[in-house]
Amino acid sequence: MSKPTAVFYHAGCPVCLDAEAAVTRYLDQGKVALEIVHLGTSKSRVVEAEAAGVKSVPALVIGGQTLHLNFGAALSALK
Amino acid sequence: MSKPTAVFYHAGCPVCLDAEAAVTRYLDQGKVALEIVHLGTSKSRVVEAEAAGVKSVPALVIGGQTLHLNFGAALSALK
Repeated sequence: MSKPTAVFYHAGCPVCLDAEAAVTRYLDQGKVALEIVHLGTSKSRVVEAEAAGVKSVPALVIGGQTLHLNFGAALSALK
Repeated sequence: MSKPTAVFYHAGCPVCLDAEAAVTRYLDQGKVALEIVHLGTSKSRVVEAEAAGVKSVPALVIGGQTLHLNFGAALSALK
């Protein structure tokens, strides 16, 4: 069975980059495959993020949960 | 050298419990030792959380960063 995927959504903001560093470093990548999505450059994925309950970035969608990590930018600002 | 400690602060709220489940499951505990602190029952540690920059719970203090995970309750409500 392949590992489930965790998706980290961000927009390149300073708060995003700090959170990305922490997630990349401390997430147990033996349990999940980490995908990092920049919604500023991958605008087509904003809809997917929204469907997962992402209201702002940075956010991590993992194991059926959406965790907003601090606050960088509202998703609505990225549309 | 002992592992650095990551501290997860919460207050038993539903949002806190969800975040705790994700942190407990997905944090790489080979890299950090996870300590879970319930600020509702350990009120003496609110000052320490505040000094670490925690504004609300649940929050994870890790590797010099303070990550607020969604929003359960303001720290000021726990004093």
